[in-house]
Order: sequence, then structure tokens, then C-alpha cells
Amino acid sequence: MTRKPVVGVMGGADVGAEVCALARELGKGIAERGWVLLNGGRDAGVMRASAAGAREAGGTVIGILPDADTSRAGPDLDYVIVTGMGDARNLINVLSSDVVIACPGGAGTLSEVALAIKNGKRVILLGWDAGAALGEFRHSGLLTMAQDPGDALAQAAEALPQPG
Amino acid sequence: MTRKPVVGVMGGADVGAEVCALARELGKGIAERGWVLLNGGRDAGVMRASAAGAREAGGTVIGILPDADTSRAGPDLDYVIVTGMGDARNLINVLSSDVVIACPGGAGTLSEVALAIKNGKRVILLGWDAGAALGEFRHSGLLTMAQDPGDALAQAAEALPQPG
Amino acid sequence: MTRKPVVGVMGGADVGAEVCALARELGKGIAERGWVLLNGGRDAGVMRASAAGAREAGGTVIGILPDADTSRAGPDLDYVIVTGMGDARNLINVLSSDVVIACPGGAGTLSEVALAIKNGKRVILLGWDAGAALGEFRHSGLLTMAQDPGDALAQAAEALPQPG
Amino acid sequence: MTRKPVVGVMGGADVGAEVCALARELGKGIAERGWVLLNGGRDAGVMRASAAGAREAGGTVIGILPDADTSRAGPDLDYVIVTGMGDARNLINVLSSDVVIACPGGAGTLSEVALAIKNGKRVILLGWDAGAALGEFRHSGLLTMAQDPGDALAQAAEALPQPG
Repeated sequence: MTRKPVVGVMGGADVGAEVCALARELGKGIAERGWVLLNGGRDAGVMRASAAGAREAGGTVIGILPDADTSRAGPDLDYVIVTGMGDARNLINVLSSDVVIACPGGAGTLSEVALAIKNGKRVILLGWDAGAALGEFRHSGLLTMAQDPGDALAQAAEALPQPG
Repeated sequence: MTRKPVVGVMGGADVGAEVCALARELGKGIAERGWVLLNGGRDAGVMRASAAGAREAGGTVIGILPDADTSRAGPDLDYVIVTGMGDARNLINVLSSDVVIACPGGAGTLSEVALAIKNGKRVILLGWDAGAALGEFRHSGLLTMAQDPGDALAQAAEALPQPG
Repeated sequence: MTRKPVVGVMGGADVGAEVCALARELGKGIAERGWVLLNGGRDAGVMRASAAGAREAGGTVIGILPDADTSRAGPDLDYVIVTGMGDARNLINVLSSDVVIACPGGAGTLSEVALAIKNGKRVILLGWDAGAALGEFRHSGLLTMAQDPGDALAQAAEALPQPG
Repeated sequence: MTRKPVVGVMGGADVGAEVCALARELGKGIAERGWVLLNGGRDAGVMRASAAGAREAGGTVIGILPDADTSRAGPDLDYVIVTGMGDARNLINVLSSDVVIACPGGAGTLSEVALAIKNGKRVILLGWDAGAALGEFRHSGLLTMAQDPGDALAQAAEALPQPG
């Protein structure tokens, strides 16, 4: 195959300036090596920053949107894939990448890490620890642990919508 | 709404007898409470065991298959949804559940935990720690950590298919 | 397999009273035969009417939603599958049906007819002619015919967004 | 937006030499106009021929694969999107195109025509009539027409797998 290597850059849409700087530098480095940068395509966070870095360095950027149109696409994409499939596009992001580099992010980024591993892709976590992210979800109350089925069922009962 | 609560049971296809016993007991408990059990539908591991437990107790089981036909569907499903979408069906599993209970599993299960949290679903981990699972992926060499973009790019370069 | 036969009922969301009456009668007949009715799940048109007919006759209805939540689900569904995948759920509708009956509808229904045939499913058109539907799309101007590549390219050039 | 226009070329994987020649000429014309050609990415029929024509003329080709890896990708693609979603990728093909040109094909191509129209895309049929294709499906016995619900139900009963 003579296609250029494709490096997927994952990461949060809602991240701080430091993470954006990291993603921009990463995007620049990908372009400088002659690799194609692939990301989630939206005009936010790691997606926007990594695309900007790659374009700055004259690289090529493919964005895979969860949306059914391009209204939320970032400005630095050369090619936009419109999936209309919401978070199911996370699978496409990782299947279409030769290697995945995951910058800090939330549960969406974690799903991409997991889907990549499930499909045998190499994943490099840049500047964060996905295990720690899971820990944070625990603080939110959304994620809890149960030691036996009875405990799990009791917790499920509490979490179900209560009949009015 | 008068529909019965739907509890999604996630977990590995390739797990030991102890985890299968746990899943079976969980499935039984779900049926006893009058809830619908929803899982990934295949005839293996947590999917098969949880369905068997629910059916044993007279419950209803919905299986959401990644496949394009029913050849790999388990024997204890009342209703089979055939997605033909591979791992993208993991998203459907969690969106269709009112609450998710995740038994031990691998990266596929972890992707379901992450996708559930991303979509604001309550997730209960039964008998395992997803963060520890991430740690195990590190031992496999598939998942590594990088501290800065240069390190990430160097690791990516090593992971890319080498030109022959 | 001892699962009940699943008959998929496709058809438009925006149809007249006559088509709704047809879909309701069809849903009733499906339930009376002990079959499960599967449709697109929304509270509109053929979906709502066929579900109502089946429920009226004591049947079971599964709705496969394109949406990422149940806010647009119809009132007569026993089980709701939430795909979050937009029109990609049309594929799931037909793959999950043993036989497909297509009531009058538009391009969405036509895509279900085509996807069903592509996957070797038997399709029964009830009260309409899909070929005529294609003819109507031609009247809309959205669908045109070209006799050679040059003609196709000229038409494409006209259809592309014009640079401001 | 400064992205190049994207013209989607749809059409059968299993077509004759004449259709391949048509697709090749079309691909060449797309490249000559400076447009990006997007197709289904496989190494067969209209996909292979249109990609070859575009590459011949120095154009850019994006292939959107239904598969979960690149083993069936054609040789003339610049960028490959790996969806792992089977026929659900047909939706992505049309959503990602500014205009769709459909060469002769079967039910898969017809589903792309329908999904494009459903999403308001302009579709140009090159050298065939999709309505006639529907007629051919009727000859196969897969597609039949019913005039009333009773007729449809009787046909469905015959089409359902018979209990052994």
C-alpha cells in the first residue's frame, strides 16, 4: 500500500488551554512527519486544536463528524466525513486510524480508547491516565461498583425512573 | 410510560465459570423484579449466562447482535435485534437500557461503560474495576502512555506499519 | 428456534388517514396471527398506526428509534430500541425482520425496501408502487437522469454549492 | 468553506465492462474538474473503475468501506474510511457527498439513491433507471405487491420460515 499513514487524534471537546496547546503541537508533529491526521471533526477542543496544528504545518486533516451535516465542522479540515450516527462514529475514528493517540478527554475519548483496543489498534495516551478518568466518573455518581448481584440489583432499583 | 424498565447487562464473551455464575444470578434477579434484560445477544459468556438466568426465572430477554444475521444468537432470547454494525451496536446496547450493569469483561465492555457514561446513563460495575482492566491492557503492550507530543510521535512511528 | 416470527412494517411518517387505516388493519392482522410487529418506533404515520393496531389486538410491538432517546417514541410500543444512528437504523429495521411489509411512504421507506432486498429479505409492497415513488422524486427536481458522463458532470456542476 | 466539492459515485460491485468504462470516464471527469471523488472503497465494479479514472487524471479519491479493515480496499484510494458497519455505510457515502451520481447497480445502489433523497441531496442517475431496477427485483420473486392487508398477511405467512 502506498497510502500515507493515518494517525487518529482523540480527545475532549471541552478541555482547557493547556490541553489545546498539547493537541496543536501534536497535530503539527503529525503533519511534519508526512502523516495524515484524522479526528472527530468538530470545531472544539482537541479536534479543533489538532487540526489547526496540522494545517499550520501543511498537513492533511480528515474529520469524521457525528452529525448529519457539516454545520459543526471545524475550519481546518481538508476532508469531512458526515456519518449522521452520533457516538457510533467513535468506532469509525479508530478503525480508520493506523495508530491512535488519545489526548485528555472524557467518556467519549475513553470509549475510543476502548474501541481501539477491542479492534487491536495501538493506543498512546498523551498526558493523561484513562484509569484516572474512570475514577472521576465515580465522583460524579454516574459510575458505582457493586460486589454481588443483590447489591447491583438494589443499586439498579434506585437508579431506575420512579413511577409517578 | 408504562413500558417495563430495561436493565442492560454487559460483560465479556470470553469469561470463566465464576463470572458466568454471577451473570446468571444477576439475570435471574432482573427477571424476578419484573424488569426486561437487554444484552449483546450472542451465545457466549455473560450474554448467554445472563439470558439463561432471566429465562429460568420467567423473564424477558432482548439481544442486540453485532452481526447481520441470527446465526450467533443465544438460545434464551425472546427478541433479537440484528444490527449488522459490529461494535457500533455497543452504543445501541447502552442507549436502549434504563440502567447498565457491567459484569467483568474486556475492552468491548469497557467501551460500553464509557458510551453509557457519555450518554448520562447510570452504570453499575459488578465484581470488577474497569480501571484495573485498563491497567491490564497496558500489560498487553497495546496501550502505552506518553508524557509529551514528541514522545507520543516517537511511539506512533514505531507502531506504524513499516514500509517493506 | 422458538422465537415468534417478526414482521417488519415500514411506511411513511407523514401520510394520510387512508394509509394510517391500512397500517392499523395490517398491525391488527399481524398481532392476530401471533407475530411480533417491528417498526421505526416514532409517534407518527405508519409507525403509530401499525403499533396501535397490533396493541389493540393484544400483540407485541418493537420500535427501533433513529433517535438517541425515547422522547419521540410512540405510545404503543412494548420494547424500544434506541439507536442514536439516524437513518442508519433503517438497516436494523429490515435485518431484524423475518419479512418486511412496506406501506406507502417516501424515500426513507424506499431505502428500507432497497436495504431489505440487498440483504435477501422478502418484501411485500402494500398499496403502492415503489417505482412510482421514484418517479415522484423526479418531479421534485432532486432526482434527474443523465445519459453520459459529460451530461452527469454538467448536472453535478449546476447542483454544487456555488462559490460566493 | 474552502474545501473542494465532493462528488459521490455510487454503483454496483458486480457490473459489466460497459458500466466500468462509464464509471472510469466519470471518475476522470470528476478529477479534471478539481472535485474530490468519494465512493464505497472496495476493489470491484463501479468503485474500482471510478477510482481508477480519477487517479489517472490526478484526482483525489476517498473510499468509505463497509468492512472493519482495509483488506478489500481498492488500489486507487488516497484516503480510506473504515466503518465496520456493513450496509449502514451507505448512509455515510451520501451524507458525505455534495452531489451523488449513481451509475447502474443493484439494491445497494438503490438504497443510496433513496437515502440521498431522504437527506435532501441531489442525485443524478447515469445510464440507468432506478425504477426499472425495482422492476427487476420483482422478477426475482423477492419483491411482490399486495393490494390489501389480508393479501399482504397471506404473502407474509408464505414467506416466513416454516416450522419444521
